[in-house]
Amino acid sequence: PEWFNHPKKDWDRPFEQRVDDGYTYFEWSHSPGHRTPNNAYFQWLHQKGMKPEQWAENRPSGHSDHVYHGPDSERHQARFCVDKAIEFIELHAAFGTAEPWVFSVNPFDPHPSYNPPRDYLERYLPMVDEIPLPAWEEGELDRKPAYQKERYESGKAHSTLGWSDRDKRLVKAAYWAMCDHLDAQVGRLLEALERSGQRENTLVIFTSDHGDLLGDHGKTVKGPYLYEGALRVPLVLHFPGVLPAGRRISDLVELTDLAPTLLDYCGLPKDPSMQGRSLRPLIEGPHDGPWREDVYAEYYNSNPDHPPLWRGRVRTRAHKLVAVHGSDEGELYDLGADPGECRNLWDDPAHRDLKERLCRRLAARQVHAAADPLPPRVGVF
Amino acid sequence: PEWFNHPKKDWDRPFEQRVDDGYTYFEWSHSPGHRTPNNAYFQWLHQKGMKPEQWAENRPSGHSDHVYHGPDSERHQARFCVDKAIEFIELHAAFGTAEPWVFSVNPFDPHPSYNPPRDYLERYLPMVDEIPLPAWEEGELDRKPAYQKERYESGKAHSTLGWSDRDKRLVKAAYWAMCDHLDAQVGRLLEALERSGQRENTLVIFTSDHGDLLGDHGKTVKGPYLYEGALRVPLVLHFPGVLPAGRRISDLVELTDLAPTLLDYCGLPKDPSMQGRSLRPLIEGPHDGPWREDVYAEYYNSNPDHPPLWRGRVRTRAHKLVAVHGSDEGELYDLGADPGECRNLWDDPAHRDLKERLCRRLAARQVHAAADPLPPRVGVF
Repeated sequence: PEWFNHPKKDWDRPFEQRVDDGYTYFEWSHSPGHRTPNNAYFQWLHQKGMKPEQWAENRPSGHSDHVYHGPDSERHQARFCVDKAIEFIELHAAFGTAEPWVFSVNPFDPHPSYNPPRDYLERYLPMVDEIPLPAWEEGELDRKPAYQKERYESGKAHSTLGWSDRDKRLVKAAYWAMCDHLDAQVGRLLEALERSGQRENTLVIFTSDHGDLLGDHGKTVKGPYLYEGALRVPLVLHFPGVLPAGRRISDLVELTDLAPTLLDYCGLPKDPSMQGRSLRPLIEGPHDGPWREDVYAEYYNSNPDHPPLWRGRVRTRAHKLVAVHGSDEGELYDLGADPGECRNLWDDPAHRDLKERLCRRLAARQVHAAADPLPPRVGVF
Repeated sequence: PEWFNHPKKDWDRPFEQRVDDGYTYFEWSHSPGHRTPNNAYFQWLHQKGMKPEQWAENRPSGHSDHVYHGPDSERHQARFCVDKAIEFIELHAAFGTAEPWVFSVNPFDPHPSYNPPRDYLERYLPMVDEIPLPAWEEGELDRKPAYQKERYESGKAHSTLGWSDRDKRLVKAAYWAMCDHLDAQVGRLLEALERSGQRENTLVIFTSDHGDLLGDHGKTVKGPYLYEGALRVPLVLHFPGVLPAGRRISDLVELTDLAPTLLDYCGLPKDPSMQGRSLRPLIEGPHDGPWREDVYAEYYNSNPDHPPLWRGRVRTRAHKLVAVHGSDEGELYDLGADPGECRNLWDDPAHRDLKERLCRRLAARQVHAAADPLPPRVGVF
């Protein structure tokens, strides 16, 4: 199958072929750069009498070359997403049907470009100098997989080479401003549930598909690295009267746990091909010992600009290992002593045992994560 | 999907649902125990006026409790397979079509029960005492994954506990006799190609899906262990005028290489989801350095009687590692000093570096072997 139908970096054409994911209806958009009449965000702008082209561009912020003024909130892609969701919620209530529903809202922000609505950015300007600088120790890239230093020193996209401290702080401010804007939009969505009488019987999950390095280790955005700043995401579950309000849980969990959790709360069985486990016992627990011994992530050549080596990461509560498969390179961190992941212990003879144990743990996780989903074995061969 | 439609060990019902593997026609049989009118072997016996039931049983050989007299060659499942193949070859020649064809012949032998045709077994009886005993060093199972010793000491199926040396030698003799019988059948197949004028333009590949431990380490048959006796199989390619006759190649190869090799000799492109690489450059070589650095195998819970832990094996020319995923157990062998794999170095501090390197090699191989086949990346996300 051809999942992609466009030449590399031809941003002006749509490139995602829909796969059948079980949704009966969807609205499609991507970042404002994708100019096509199929883009439902542009249709929404058009219906509001706005010009899509006008909002496809970032305007210089005047504060840093790396921070822009993006579309105002009224015209923002995040607002478009939430407006569509609210429309769904209200129509459902108006029809008065008892049919259960599920939907997924996927605003593009927070994400580079670092281009929050201007007023959201400006709230941070008085305190920019108080923003902590990214994780960085002089010379740290000398002890990490060589590609990280090469990429950093190339100064190409996502390298922070030559950035001033103020640039680095302003990018964080812009990212936080995008989070604030998204927070306001999520608030509108919860209000719509409340207004339509559906808040009490709706499980809301707030999460993300990735974070952002925001300058840690001389880099912005995410892959092909597997730093915690890119991998750790928020996870908030809200279900009044069912889930305990305000409870914080610090156990290790994975995004793979979400589908089994949803099925569990719906009283539906988990598909045997699902790798995760329902969080319901963790949420309603007590439970003995750690909920998960480790969490797993993988990077499989998702971008033709990246080197072709696949990478795997396993972390326990205390340690983390990243293997660059097919090479002798990798990363090993003591997250207690070095939560910023600046001191790579991969080649440290004193940590050889830990490296070996975590490598076997990685192999054990990935063999289950990557294998074809199989039905339960009942036969003898 | 339900791939199996029978209760565990209900041998009297068919249990394999056909999957679409691209073949336009097939004849199905399994070992003689599967009594069903769908069994094409039984249909073949019936057409010859023989009683299927009569040949479903092994008769005591009188030499060892573990060795039987199986069906005579005239009624043998291997002969049935080859007869069907010869029928195909001759019909193809009779039709005189230039259409290319491919088929796969899969006799059940050599395989337990150890039940060759009586006359094939008897050739070995005068030399039984010269047959080498299986690989075994006293106490070796104390340093291997615990399941191996438990299973051995249980005396259950496939354990050689309590076998005499003569039992062990006779089982090898019976296995070799089955190989001899199969060799004769393959000869008939090559003669049919010759007779019908198709031998010169037919690539014949002789191989197997597994070997047999034949008593090595106190066990017969194969899984869930990953010893070389179970994993190493013959591989003979025959293509007169195209492949050099009589050449022996000792490089490491995998069964995954066969499909790309066939496609290569047919002038067809390799599917990107195929893990193997065409052997054509190796066959037509010379090439620099080792053809493959390592070969990979996996065991993923193929039998509900086995413990549920998955296992992975990687071997280089000199060494071999088996990880029991999700446990601290495993195996590490120096194949130069210990080709019989009796001395497990897994917990030997002097081999910690080797263990760590091979474990990373295993992870690198399995992550590519087990991942969903993906089309080549052309897009940027």
